Amino acid sequence: MASMDVKLSHGAGAKEMWEFIQKYIVSKVPRNLWKTVNGYGLDVLDDGAVIKIGDNYIVISIDSYTVNPIFFKGGNIGELAVSGTLNDLVMMGAKPIAFMDTIVVEEGFPTKDLEIIIESMVKILREEGIPLIGGDFKVMPKGSIDRVVITGVGIGLASKPIIDVMINENDAIIVTGPIAEHGAVIMAHQLGMENEIKDLQSDTKPLTRTVLPVIEKFKEYIHAARDPTRGGLAATLYEWVLKSDLTIIIDRNKIPIRDSVRYFLDALGIDPLNMASEGIGVLAVEPSIADDIVEELRKVGETHAAIIGRVIKVNNPLLRGKVIAITEVGGKVIVEPRSVNLPRIC
Amino acid sequence: MASMDVKLSHGAGAKEMWEFIQKYIVSKVPRNLWKTVNGYGLDVLDDGAVIKIGDNYIVISIDSYTVNPIFFKGGNIGELAVSGTLNDLVMMGAKPIAFMDTIVVEEGFPTKDLEIIIESMVKILREEGIPLIGGDFKVMPKGSIDRVVITGVGIGLASKPIIDVMINENDAIIVTGPIAEHGAVIMAHQLGMENEIKDLQSDTKPLTRTVLPVIEKFKEYIHAARDPTRGGLAATLYEWVLKSDLTIIIDRNKIPIRDSVRYFLDALGIDPLNMASEGIGVLAVEPSIADDIVEELRKVGETHAAIIGRVIKVNNPLLRGKVIAITEVGGKVIVEPRSVNLPRIC
Repeated sequence: MASMDVKLSHGAGAKEMWEFIQKYIVSKVPRNLWKTVNGYGLDVLDDGAVIKIGDNYIVISIDSYTVNPIFFKGGNIGELAVSGTLNDLVMMGAKPIAFMDTIVVEEGFPTKDLEIIIESMVKILREEGIPLIGGDFKVMPKGSIDRVVITGVGIGLASKPIIDVMINENDAIIVTGPIAEHGAVIMAHQLGMENEIKDLQSDTKPLTRTVLPVIEKFKEYIHAARDPTRGGLAATLYEWVLKSDLTIIIDRNKIPIRDSVRYFLDALGIDPLNMASEGIGVLAVEPSIADDIVEELRKVGETHAAIIGRVIKVNNPLLRGKVIAITEVGGKVIVEPRSVNLPRIC
Repeated sequence: MASMDVKLSHGAGAKEMWEFIQKYIVSKVPRNLWKTVNGYGLDVLDDGAVIKIGDNYIVISIDSYTVNPIFFKGGNIGELAVSGTLNDLVMMGAKPIAFMDTIVVEEGFPTKDLEIIIESMVKILREEGIPLIGGDFKVMPKGSIDRVVITGVGIGLASKPIIDVMINENDAIIVTGPIAEHGAVIMAHQLGMENEIKDLQSDTKPLTRTVLPVIEKFKEYIHAARDPTRGGLAATLYEWVLKSDLTIIIDRNKIPIRDSVRYFLDALGIDPLNMASEGIGVLAVEPSIADDIVEELRKVGETHAAIIGRVIKVNNPLLRGKVIAITEVGGKVIVEPRSVNLPRIC
């Protein structure tokens, strides 16, 4: 067979990406090696890796940010890099203790833009009380990189990290806020429609002071946690059922979503379930405690937090390992994790 | 004053880069914040950051690799990313325990090239017994990134990390191998002269099994350690004297360098002191033990290891905080850390 080229869908967060990463990266890494670290690594493919050192679990998350445009409604690439990296730690149940980054910038990039980006990164870190402890800075010649790419590394501590292989039958599925806002805003920019979404903003924000305390308080009842970025809510739920062979059923009527986001995406024929968020989390929790968790989330300011579905066990092999949605009119359909044609979303 | 644009020299590893990073990044980070971490961060600007957790020092290094070409004589961008990242840990006196990466690739990049790169990364990690515990994979549309950029993160443990603020008067300066090989090879490729350097290869390699055991054995006598990458030996020594206000005097006749590298760079009028290496270390050590360290380095296979100079205290303010070289004919000149016009060297 002829050699294949990398496609945009291989980086889009959905099924094609997971298959590509499995084939070209994960399958090449010897299992016995990554088990020499006392913790969790590529075997769980979670938001971050975990290393046990003494009595401490160190959690480390890493992501490269290539978002286009670099300044968007509600944020910029620097805020996104810090928030996204910290949120991965939060979703592992870890308290961020330090941040590192690399900035790769194009020759000719205006230093005033660099200053705005760095100052907004530092602003978030200062507000969250997290030190920037190191990094790297590279310049590529004009034409060899489009503006700037930032890589964020978050270092956190957890008494007991949340590893997503653990979802259980009957778990309630909670989202902490309205979905699809970041994806909708980036799509509007890329289509030149940013003036038509006046009241719409990316939800980019760190969850360190809202969702993290709730996760810490209810940790023993939370079986999985994820921030639904690339691939959106559909991709997150799909990863969970694939790992567990259970089924998740969600109710579209219960999923928080702003009207402006819904109308904008409807007009384009795009399902909000496939669109990225950068300031919310999805949790799979003990059903008995789900209402308490939602109440606590609303108390800390996540006023749209809601139970949107649950984990079930089905016998029908066609529905096992799937995500099912109850539609607005009460029918049931299988949700597919689709790659929306939206490069450089994060 | 009009806003400035980022220049290639701002990423080239020498004086312009340090001034740029100081002005646009380090100065913006509040000092009180990074001191909340028990360890060392941007205050030391060393090869990596250090976090003390319990009785353990966790050392974390991060670098983005933008090398052009991505396949070069003696290595490729993947081998470079792993070796360079691990060597930063070695130079902090830390034993690598895990590796993470992000790969940002251009749409249309051949998967066979991606496989070669990933397999050579995994090969080194397997040989060194270091697990790849996590990462990120992004695809950018054609034209928005030239081929591939890889970010490496190394996680290591040290009983007592080597922080480079510690060089002392009379310290001996040791290099563990011949200098300037990586820089010379990349320059040859970029000038289309790679066929004229038949016997020349990049020195890209991990120092985990050669230099690290020696550093561990003699740790209490080693005051500073650095791998002289961007900016070469001159930039490394210059950073040390700037931090200490001492002076370093080196003897050009004692610096190991292959004839092929010397001839190639001489023909171009380039000083090998300004050219990057990717498989050697520079150490500042107690003078009484310097010969023993060199002997041990030669025993483990670093047969060109040599004492090349020493740290002195001078009264002349023009020579304080400078690097002085004894020339081939016995004269003395001040070495300047020059940015060679060589983008994407690592």
